[in-house]
Amino acid sequence: MRQVLNFIYKCSVFSRSYSLVPFRLSHNLEWGSNKVHRKIKIPNPYKDIIMADPKIEEILAPFRASVKEQGDLVRKLKEDKAPEIDVKKAVAELKARKKLLEDKELALTPSEEMFDRAKMEDLIKRRFFYDQSFAIYGGITGQFDFGPMGCALKSNMIQLWRKYFILQEQMLEVDCSILTPEPVLKASGHVERFADLMTKDIKTGECFRLDHLIKAHLEKIKSEKNTKAELKAEIEDILVKLDGMTADDMSALMQRFQMKSPVSGNELTPPIEFNLMFNTQIGPSGLVKGFLRPETAQGIFVNFKRLLEFNQGRLPFAAAQIGNSFRNEISPRSGLLRVREFTMCEIEHFCDSKSHPKFDTVKDTKMLLYSADNQEQGKPAEITTIGEAVSKGIVNNETLGYFMARIHLYLLAVGIDPKKLRFRQHMGNEMAHYACDCWDAECLSSYGWVECVGCADRSAYDLTQHTKATGIRLAAEKKLPAPKQIEVVEAVANKAAIGKEFKKDAKVINDTLGSMDSAALDDLQSKLDSNGEYILSTSVGEFKLTPNLVSVKKSQKTVHVEEIIPSVIEPSFGIGRILYCILEHNFKMREGDEQRTYFSLPATVAPMKCAVLPLSGNAEFQPFVRELNQLLTNVDVSHKVDDSSGSIGRRYARTDELGVPYAITVDFDTVKEPHTVTLRERDNMGQVRLPIEDVPIVVRDLANSKISWSSVEQKYPKFEQQENVKGAAA
Amino acid sequence: MRQVLNFIYKCSVFSRSYSLVPFRLSHNLEWGSNKVHRKIKIPNPYKDIIMADPKIEEILAPFRASVKEQGDLVRKLKEDKAPEIDVKKAVAELKARKKLLEDKELALTPSEEMFDRAKMEDLIKRRFFYDQSFAIYGGITGQFDFGPMGCALKSNMIQLWRKYFILQEQMLEVDCSILTPEPVLKASGHVERFADLMTKDIKTGECFRLDHLIKAHLEKIKSEKNTKAELKAEIEDILVKLDGMTADDMSALMQRFQMKSPVSGNELTPPIEFNLMFNTQIGPSGLVKGFLRPETAQGIFVNFKRLLEFNQGRLPFAAAQIGNSFRNEISPRSGLLRVREFTMCEIEHFCDSKSHPKFDTVKDTKMLLYSADNQEQGKPAEITTIGEAVSKGIVNNETLGYFMARIHLYLLAVGIDPKKLRFRQHMGNEMAHYACDCWDAECLSSYGWVECVGCADRSAYDLTQHTKATGIRLAAEKKLPAPKQIEVVEAVANKAAIGKEFKKDAKVINDTLGSMDSAALDDLQSKLDSNGEYILSTSVGEFKLTPNLVSVKKSQKTVHVEEIIPSVIEPSFGIGRILYCILEHNFKMREGDEQRTYFSLPATVAPMKCAVLPLSGNAEFQPFVRELNQLLTNVDVSHKVDDSSGSIGRRYARTDELGVPYAITVDFDTVKEPHTVTLRERDNMGQVRLPIEDVPIVVRDLANSKISWSSVEQKYPKFEQQENVKGAAA
Repeated sequence: MRQVLNFIYKCSVFSRSYSLVPFRLSHNLEWGSNKVHRKIKIPNPYKDIIMADPKIEEILAPFRASVKEQGDLVRKLKEDKAPEIDVKKAVAELKARKKLLEDKELALTPSEEMFDRAKMEDLIKRRFFYDQSFAIYGGITGQFDFGPMGCALKSNMIQLWRKYFILQEQMLEVDCSILTPEPVLKASGHVERFADLMTKDIKTGECFRLDHLIKAHLEKIKSEKNTKAELKAEIEDILVKLDGMTADDMSALMQRFQMKSPVSGNELTPPIEFNLMFNTQIGPSGLVKGFLRPETAQGIFVNFKRLLEFNQGRLPFAAAQIGNSFRNEISPRSGLLRVREFTMCEIEHFCDSKSHPKFDTVKDTKMLLYSADNQEQGKPAEITTIGEAVSKGIVNNETLGYFMARIHLYLLAVGIDPKKLRFRQHMGNEMAHYACDCWDAECLSSYGWVECVGCADRSAYDLTQHTKATGIRLAAEKKLPAPKQIEVVEAVANKAAIGKEFKKDAKVINDTLGSMDSAALDDLQSKLDSNGEYILSTSVGEFKLTPNLVSVKKSQKTVHVEEIIPSVIEPSFGIGRILYCILEHNFKMREGDEQRTYFSLPATVAPMKCAVLPLSGNAEFQPFVRELNQLLTNVDVSHKVDDSSGSIGRRYARTDELGVPYAITVDFDTVKEPHTVTLRERDNMGQVRLPIEDVPIVVRDLANSKISWSSVEQKYPKFEQQENVKGAAA
Repeated sequence: MRQVLNFIYKCSVFSRSYSLVPFRLSHNLEWGSNKVHRKIKIPNPYKDIIMADPKIEEILAPFRASVKEQGDLVRKLKEDKAPEIDVKKAVAELKARKKLLEDKELALTPSEEMFDRAKMEDLIKRRFFYDQSFAIYGGITGQFDFGPMGCALKSNMIQLWRKYFILQEQMLEVDCSILTPEPVLKASGHVERFADLMTKDIKTGECFRLDHLIKAHLEKIKSEKNTKAELKAEIEDILVKLDGMTADDMSALMQRFQMKSPVSGNELTPPIEFNLMFNTQIGPSGLVKGFLRPETAQGIFVNFKRLLEFNQGRLPFAAAQIGNSFRNEISPRSGLLRVREFTMCEIEHFCDSKSHPKFDTVKDTKMLLYSADNQEQGKPAEITTIGEAVSKGIVNNETLGYFMARIHLYLLAVGIDPKKLRFRQHMGNEMAHYACDCWDAECLSSYGWVECVGCADRSAYDLTQHTKATGIRLAAEKKLPAPKQIEVVEAVANKAAIGKEFKKDAKVINDTLGSMDSAALDDLQSKLDSNGEYILSTSVGEFKLTPNLVSVKKSQKTVHVEEIIPSVIEPSFGIGRILYCILEHNFKMREGDEQRTYFSLPATVAPMKCAVLPLSGNAEFQPFVRELNQLLTNVDVSHKVDDSSGSIGRRYARTDELGVPYAITVDFDTVKEPHTVTLRERDNMGQVRLPIEDVPIVVRDLANSKISWSSVEQKYPKFEQQENVKGAAA
C-alpha cells in the first residue's frame, strides 16, 4: 500500500506536502464511545489490500461467485439476443447481487478512520462555507448559498481547473446562454427523456419522488415487529432491485402494498414522468418556450461550426465551458450532492481519431479502475497504470485514457484523498442515451461513492441530432491523402415548383432535402417510384412530395476531402460535489481535542492563504499589521486580518477552522529591530521566525506550492513557543 | 487637456503604456468618402475644451439658458410642494430641453475620431468574440454566446475585478442561488415594480415595447412628405418627452395617432405592464413560484445576518457577488447593451458611518462629474478631484466617493478610454425606488452614453424590507460609549391564548408582534383602547386581536448597545456593457490599410497574452515551437500557436485582430546557436530579438505590466525587418 500511495503523490503535479503529516490523524485518533452513533465508518477502498486477507476473501467468495454467475447469465442472454425484457430483469438481479457484495465488502473493511458528519456540518454552517438559500424566508431545499469561504474555495478550484485544462491543453473556452429554447433540447433528447418518476397526492397535489416513497414505505413495513421474516426478506430483495425498475414495476408495488401519501394519508396518482428541466417563456408573448439548461454541453454543440472555424477548420480540438446548470429535482436531499442549481465544468473534445499525442506523458499514472467487466464478474476494482488499461482494452482508447488521467491528477491537486478515489465504468445498461463508453470518477464520502466527474464517449450523437434538427451540417472536412472518385447521391429539388406549392415552408423543405443521407435518399427514390409520392418530415411538419417536385440523382464526383462528424469525448465535472468531497476528505480533529476541528485544505485551493494576527490589541502592533496587509496585497496573496479579542491560540483555532494554511503573528519582538514575525503552518502547527520583508514572497511561494514548508523550516529559525491546544477552540 | 489625461494615467494602478502610441490612430486616419455613411461620429466629451471655444458657447448659450430656466422652475415647484403631477410635467419638459442641449453639444463637438461599427461587428463575429445564441436554430434576440476570445476577455476582466475589489478591499465574496422564490422579490419591490409597458396585437398576440412602437410610428409620420411643419414640430416635442410619460399619456398618444400593429395592421391592446422577470416553478408541485433573479444584490441582503456574524458582528463590511442575472426584455436591441441574461459584479457595502478610512488614498483622483445640479442648470460636466467633490457636497459622502474613484480606476485598467468616461448623477425623479443617491459611470459609445456601472446609496431600504417580510431583524449592534436608560415599548402577547385561537398561524402572529416598531405599537395601543380590537396584517393574512390576546408594555431599560440597520452603498457593474465599450474604445485600424483592423486591448485583459508563430512549416522549427509552448505554459502565460499556412505578415494581422499584445516568431536564426526568437509588440509593431530562454519571463512580466515594452526595447537588440502592412490582412 505504501508503494501505491507514493507513486500517486509523485504523479501529482501540485505537491501537497503529504510527507509532513502522513495520515497521522487518521491512525491515532481516539474517540469517546458516547459519540460513536454520530460517526460514519469510512472504509479503505484499496481492495487489493483486502484481497490480501484470506479470511475476508473467504467470507466474500460466495458473494463474488453469485455476482459472477449472474454476470455470465447477462452476457449469455445478450449474446443470444434474448428479448430485451429478459435482459433487463437479469441486469436488475445482477445489480442487486453486486450491491450485496459491495455492502459486505464495506462492512468487512478494516476501519481506518472515523468521520463525524454532524461535526463537519456544524463547522460548515457556523463559519458559513455554505448554507441553505433564503433561510430567513423558510429556505428552499436543494438550493445553497456559498459564503465567503465556500465561494473562495469554489473559485480557487475553478481557477485551477481553468489553468489545468483550458490553459495547459489550449482549449477553446466558451460562455453560452443558460436560457435555452425548446427545439435545442428536443434535439438533444432532454425534452423527451430527462425525467424522473413521481407520484402526487390526489387531494393536496403534494409530490413525492417515487423510488424514495417506495423505499420509505417498504422500510417501515420491514421494521415493524409483526412483519413476517419471509416478507422482510422479500422486501430486502425489492429494495436492492428498486433502482432498475420501470414505471409499471413501481406501479405494481404501490398497489400491492397499498401505498398512500405519507403526509396526508390520501390516495396517490399512478407514476408520472416528471421532466427535470425548469421551464419558462422567453420574451413577452409567452409563445417561445424555453428551459434553463440542464447541462452546459449543448451550448458547445450548437456553436460547433464557429469553433471549428476558429480552429481554422482543423480537428482535433476541445471546447470547454464553466457555468451553472439547473435540474428541478423532485425532492433533493444529501446537501450539496443533489441540488437544483450547480456549477459544472464541461469539456467537449472533438476528434476524428482516438489516439492522443500527449498520452505518453500520463501513461504511467496509476489509478484505481473498476471496470464493467470486474463489476459483472464480482471482482474488486484494480490498481493499474492508465497505459496498461488502454493497451489491454479495459479503457477504450488513448483520448479517453488521457482525460481520465488528467481528471485523476486534477482531483488530487484540489485535495481529494487518493485512497478515496476510483474510476468506475458504466455497465452497458446504465449508460446515458448518448454515450458509448463512460467512466465516472467516484469519490468515497459518508454518503457512499459519489459520482464527481463523468468521462463519456458521446460519439457523434449530439452533432448528428442537431444536424437533423436544423438541416445545417455540423461536420468537419479532412483532406484525403489522394483524391478519389465517389458516387454522389443527392436530392434534386425543383425549387421553383416547391416555392410555388409550399410558399414559406419551401426553405425548410429544400434544407431538409439537402441534408438527407444516402439511406434516406434510397427510401425517397423507392417511395417516389412505387407510390408516386413521398412524405417528408421536417421541423415544421410533414409535406407530400411528388416526382415533379423532387428526384434523386446519382453521379460520379472527384473529391479531395472527406466529411467527418467528429467523435466527442466529454469530461464533465460537478464542482459542488467535488467541493463537498474535498471538505470531507480534509476534515480533521486535533489530537487530544475533539472540539478543535479544521480543514487541512491544500494551499492551492484554501479560501485564504494566510491570516495576520496581532498578539493583542496593543497599539504598537498596528503599523506592522497594516504593513503586512499592504505587502500581501501587493503580491496578490489573499489574507485576513484577525485583530479581534481572544487569545492567540483561540484565533489560531479559528483560522484553522477556515482551512487557512499559514498564520503570521505580530508580537513584541516584531516591534524591536530587526522587525520579525512568526509564521505558522496549519497542519503540523510548527512555527518559524522571519524578517517581515521576507513574508510576502515566502507566503506566496508556499501558497503556489513553489516551496515546501520543510524548506522554510530549514531556512528560518524555529519558533519554539508551543500552542496550548486543549481548550483553545472558540 | 493633456494635463487632464496625464493625471488620469498616473492614477491608474495598472499602467497601460499609453505613452507608446498616444492616440496616434485616432488623429491620423483618413477615410474613403464612400464609407462615411457607415461611420458614426464620436465627439470629444471633455466639455471644458468646448467651453473654451467662444463661438461654440455662443451657439449653446440659448440652449443652456432654456435648460436653466426650466431647472429653476422644477426647483421652485418642489420647494413650494406643488402637486406631484405639476412637478412631473415640469421634469419631463426639463429632460426634453436637456436632450436638445446635449444633442446640440454633440453636434458642435469637433470630431476627433471616426468609428466604423459595422467593421468592428464584422471582426467580432468573424473571430467569434461573441455571437447570437442558438443561431443554427434561428437565434433568440437578446442572448449571446461568448466564443474563446470574448470568454477569455470577460474572464480576465472578472479576475481583475476580483483582485481589485475583493482581494484589495478584503470583501466577503458570496455565490447565491439564481432561482429565487417569490416572497423575496415581493419584499424587494421587484414583483410589483420591475416592469416595462408593452402592447399586444389583439389577434396574433405579438408584443411590442410601447415606447419603441410609439417612437417608430411618430418618426414615420414625421418623415412623410405631406406632414405639416406644425405637426412635425409637435412630434419632435413628443419624442423627447416620451421617456417620462405614464401609461395614460402613452395610451392617449396611441388613440390620437390611431396606432396599429406595424406587422399585421391589427388593433393593439391598451398599455400592459409587463414584469421583466422570468418566472418558473421550483419543485414538482407547481406551487412554489420562483423567478430568475433580476440582480444579484438580494442574495447578499438575505444573507446579511450570516455575513455580519462572519465579520464577527462588526460594521462596516462589504460583500460582493459575481454572477448572472436575467431580465425578460420585451424587444432587446443594441447588441450586448441590452440582453436577457448578463453577468453582474455587485458590491453591497454595509456601514453605519459614511466616512471611509481609505478615502485619502483616492482623494486626488480627477474625474469627469456630471452632477444633477449641472444637468438641471444646463451646465456641462466638470472635471474635479473626488476629494473636492465630496468636500463641496457634490458627492454626498466619502464612502460613495471612494467607490466612485475605485470604479473609475478599474474601468481605466480594463481599457476604457478616459476621454469617454463620465459619472452622471441621477436627478431626483429618475432614481430607483430604493436609492437615495446614485451616480452612474457612463461610457461613450456609438450608441451614445451607456450606463456601465451604477453606484447607488440604497440606504437601509432592502434590509428594512426583508425584516418586515420575515420578522427577522436584519440589523447590527453597536456598543454605546456609555450605557443608557431607554424607554422600551413592546407588545406582550398572551401566547397560550393566541396559540389556542389561531393554531398554526400563532407563530407568524407572535413573530409579527415581536417585530413591530414603536409607531406601530402606538397604533396597536390606541386601537385596542378605542375599538377593543386591532387588525394585524401578517405575511399569511389579517387577524383580529383583542385585549385578552395582546397588550402594550412600556418600561425603562439599561442598554449597552444600540441596534443599527446599516446603510448600503452599492456599486453594480454590468460586465457585458463594459466589455462592449472596451471593444469599441480599443478598435483600431492600421495607418494606410483600412482592412487591417485590430483591438489594442491592455495586456491585463487581452484574451491571450502572446502568439507563437513558426516562420513556415519547416520541420526544423517544430522543436522550438514545442519548447516555447511548454515554457509559456509553465509560467501560466496564455498563448496560441499559429502554425497555419499564410505569410508571417498575414498571421501577425490575425493575432492583432484577436488583440494579442505580443507575438514570438521562430525563424531560421532560431535554429542556429545561440537560439533566439523575435518578439513583436502589437500596437507599435516594433520587434526585438532575444534568447529563447528569456522569453517566458519577459512575456509574463509584460503581460502583468511589471515591465514596459520600452524597457524591453532598451534591453534587447531591435529586429529591423519591417512588416509589409498593406495587403497583409487575411
